[in-house]
Amino acid sequence: MTTTTDVSFRYATRDDLPAIVGLLADDEKGKTREELSDPLPDAYTAAFDAMESQSTDALPNKYLLALQGTEIVGCLQLTLIAGLSRRGQLRAQIEGVRVASSARGQKIGEKLITQSVSISKSLGAALVQFTTDKTRKDAHRFYERLGFVASHEGMKMQIT
Amino acid sequence: MTTTTDVSFRYATRDDLPAIVGLLADDEKGKTREELSDPLPDAYTAAFDAMESQSTDALPNKYLLALQGTEIVGCLQLTLIAGLSRRGQLRAQIEGVRVASSARGQKIGEKLITQSVSISKSLGAALVQFTTDKTRKDAHRFYERLGFVASHEGMKMQIT
Repeated sequence: MTTTTDVSFRYATRDDLPAIVGLLADDEKGKTREELSDPLPDAYTAAFDAMESQSTDALPNKYLLALQGTEIVGCLQLTLIAGLSRRGQLRAQIEGVRVASSARGQKIGEKLITQSVSISKSLGAALVQFTTDKTRKDAHRFYERLGFVASHEGMKMQIT
Repeated sequence: MTTTTDVSFRYATRDDLPAIVGLLADDEKGKTREELSDPLPDAYTAAFDAMESQSTDALPNKYLLALQGTEIVGCLQLTLIAGLSRRGQLRAQIEGVRVASSARGQKIGEKLITQSVSISKSLGAALVQFTTDKTRKDAHRFYERLGFVASHEGMKMQIT
C-alpha cells in the first residue's frame, strides 16, 4: 500500500540541529563530511548561531525543513543575498538539500525546492541559484526538470 | 614604458556606487545587464542598502574595491555565508569580479582575489566559492591558476 502523507514546511530552530545533521550525513558525500555524534560537535551550534546572526526577516539565512507530521524528512539551507549586479538583483541561494532515505520517492525534494522558490519570490528575489557536485548526475536531471539551467561553472577552493 | 602602480583595497561606500556600476557594465555580459544612467536607477541604491543591512563585521556582504591612487580600478562582491554542511564550515562567496578595461594586464584581478581570500581566512572561512558563466573560458583558466577547482555545476533559475 502506498501512503501519501502531506508535507508541511517551517524554518529550523536550534532544537532541530541533530535532525538536520542527521539528514546532512544521510548522503553519499555527506557521510564522510559530517560528524553525527551525541552531543553534536560545538561547530554545528556555533554555525547555527552564526546563521541566525546574519538573518533578517527580509533576508533570511535559514534551514527550511520539510515535515510529515512531526517528523523532519527533508531540509535545505535558503540564503537571500543582496547584490549590485544585474541591476541590483536579489538572489536566493540553496545549499545542503537532503531528503531522508526513508522518505525518498515521495517528491519531497521537489516540494522543498518549490517551497523555497515560492519563499524567494515573496521576498523579492529574481534568481535562485546553487551549485551541485559534478558527480551528482541524477541531481542535475532533477534540477533541470524543475527549470534550473547549468549555465555556470561552480568553482571552489578550500582555504583551511 | 610600463608603469607599475601599487594597488590598495577598501570596502565600498554608497558614494562608490556609480564607479562600481561603471565597472559592472564594463564587461561583455554586464553591458547588457546593467543600466549606467545619471542618476543611477534607484534599484542600485536599494540593493546597496540591503547589502549593508545584512552585513556584520564578522559576516560581511560588501563590495571590495581595488584602487590605484584614488581611482577605483576593480571590484568584487564578497559575502560570508554561515551554514551547517561540512561540519558548519563558514563559506566566502565571490560575485561581480571586474577590472576596469583601462587597467587590465596589471594582475589587478589576481590581487583582488588574493585579497578576498586573505580577508575570508581572517574571518574564519574554510572555503571560497563562486560561479562563472560557462562561456567565460579565459576566466576559468585564470581561476584555476589561482587554485580554484571547477568541481560543481552552477545552476540558476530566473524567477521573475
